Amino acid sequence: MAVYTEVSDEDIEAFVAYYDIGQVTSCKGIAEGVENSNYLLQTSQASFILTLYEKRVNPDDLPFFLNLMEHLAAHGLRCPTPVRGRDGSALRALCGRPAALVSFLSGLWPRRISVSHCSGLGQAMAQLHMLGQSFTGTRANTLGLRAWRPLFVTEADRADDVKPGLSAALAAELDFLEAHWPTDLPRGIIHADLFPDNVFFTGDRLSGLIDFYFACSDFLAFDIAICLNAWCFESDGSFNVTKARALLSSYQQSRKLSDDEYDALVVLARGAAMRFLLTRLYDWLNTPAGAMVNRKDPLEYERKLRFHAQLGSVADYGLAR
Amino acid sequence: MAVYTEVSDEDIEAFVAYYDIGQVTSCKGIAEGVENSNYLLQTSQASFILTLYEKRVNPDDLPFFLNLMEHLAAHGLRCPTPVRGRDGSALRALCGRPAALVSFLSGLWPRRISVSHCSGLGQAMAQLHMLGQSFTGTRANTLGLRAWRPLFVTEADRADDVKPGLSAALAAELDFLEAHWPTDLPRGIIHADLFPDNVFFTGDRLSGLIDFYFACSDFLAFDIAICLNAWCFESDGSFNVTKARALLSSYQQSRKLSDDEYDALVVLARGAAMRFLLTRLYDWLNTPAGAMVNRKDPLEYERKLRFHAQLGSVADYGLAR
Repeated sequence: MAVYTEVSDEDIEAFVAYYDIGQVTSCKGIAEGVENSNYLLQTSQASFILTLYEKRVNPDDLPFFLNLMEHLAAHGLRCPTPVRGRDGSALRALCGRPAALVSFLSGLWPRRISVSHCSGLGQAMAQLHMLGQSFTGTRANTLGLRAWRPLFVTEADRADDVKPGLSAALAAELDFLEAHWPTDLPRGIIHADLFPDNVFFTGDRLSGLIDFYFACSDFLAFDIAICLNAWCFESDGSFNVTKARALLSSYQQSRKLSDDEYDALVVLARGAAMRFLLTRLYDWLNTPAGAMVNRKDPLEYERKLRFHAQLGSVADYGLAR
Repeated sequence: MAVYTEVSDEDIEAFVAYYDIGQVTSCKGIAEGVENSNYLLQTSQASFILTLYEKRVNPDDLPFFLNLMEHLAAHGLRCPTPVRGRDGSALRALCGRPAALVSFLSGLWPRRISVSHCSGLGQAMAQLHMLGQSFTGTRANTLGLRAWRPLFVTEADRADDVKPGLSAALAAELDFLEAHWPTDLPRGIIHADLFPDNVFFTGDRLSGLIDFYFACSDFLAFDIAICLNAWCFESDGSFNVTKARALLSSYQQSRKLSDDEYDALVVLARGAAMRFLLTRLYDWLNTPAGAMVNRKDPLEYERKLRFHAQLGSVADYGLAR
């Protein structure tokens, strides 16, 4: 939960004057997202999300994110559409931060994941991947394979404070991932953070994807691997193969996985677990204990990593090709 | 800013089913208020604020607060109206907390106070005081004169850590207030927390008062004294008599102050400063330093207290009777 930058009524009104969206009737800081400050802005015309980008976002990446959302929304994906001001720009400054206004998306994110949520997710992710093929922007995955070793080095000394033996286990897993990471899978734009809180539903129907601020160019199947971890494990650590099948099967109704992609799912899932384990561990080690921020448990992803690592092949998930 | 209780999509939908307000389309935790958890709930029919009452609110007081808002709104004050469920009740449980739904009020609260804001405030406060006369509920002011000494006792040992000499100064001031507090001023329902963040404006026009969770029965002029402190001091500590005149004069267009009330304004303003100084000091001394909560500066109110204490009579404010 987060509102890092307090925006005054006068700041808001001056900002909104750049747009053709009517008069401000309300503006509430919302307790969602951990990276940026978000406000639900209501005007005489519609509702919007106003985002002030805080220090974890590289301002140079913002045109990529905003152009991507505009491209996806224009081609029919349910996602926030950036609003351009009268000067044609979707990005301007507010309270010393880069800021943008996007359309408001209705829906709630699911706390208890059902099989039908996973079906909706698979379909929307495939649509995102296919629409991304006609998008001309690119952005390297700054939290991809090559980022993990440097991130691990900063944590190696203290990882064992979280769990004895964790540092050596991570070092060995990194060796494995660097040796076995695929090199020639289909690439394109991935969301890279499709956790349940970024996927809205109205009833059982998916109403939209949000938070494209980790989107990048990488293996499309890496996005699937991230979702297998985020959507298909139960809270007791068990892997729900019915959810995984629903996700993969609805995805493949739109975009069929190649044999190479299918065979790579185990190593990609190990890599996806490593990526979130490393960033959660970083936050865990660098957040003051008293701070009122929800630190996410890094060991949740250590358990998922071990689950994948013990498998021989993708067939062992119980997933038919 | 606060969302203490996380409410799931399923909890929300089950809760809303008790009401005749349409289908949920969105529900966002909002970063306002420091006492309770607040959500902006949108349905197919309208927008609402959903409040979960956290531990600082006495559940026994909730019927008083909700009935008061309903009474005031029904008689024309712009304030949130509690929504009753199909069972007739405006109060039920959600996630183990008492919870209520109230109508959504448009407007923004002013960060930079103008004279015209003070005029709007005076008029709305007088309207609140007069409408309160026909309200049959009562609630003692649990943060009134009699609460200050016990609160001070818990802080006395550590007050000098905040400012050397503060403990002795507060003890002397309490002696003065207990000796000189008025006994027979007009009483009624007061808001008791009419700070700028509880007063919404659309442009220059007051659009509503919110947050009645300190409302109680006390001297009506004590509410005015709270507002003189909260609205009429500049950030450099100077007292803006033009704002104070605007507040008093617009108030008196609806409800004329008696001579006794007018003469008591200095001691009431000292008491109002003491009340917020003591609660801020309590929060200051009892909030961990690393916690991401805005601790409000108790010394702001110590300076306001000294300002009032140095005056001989209300005429010294520059306020004509």
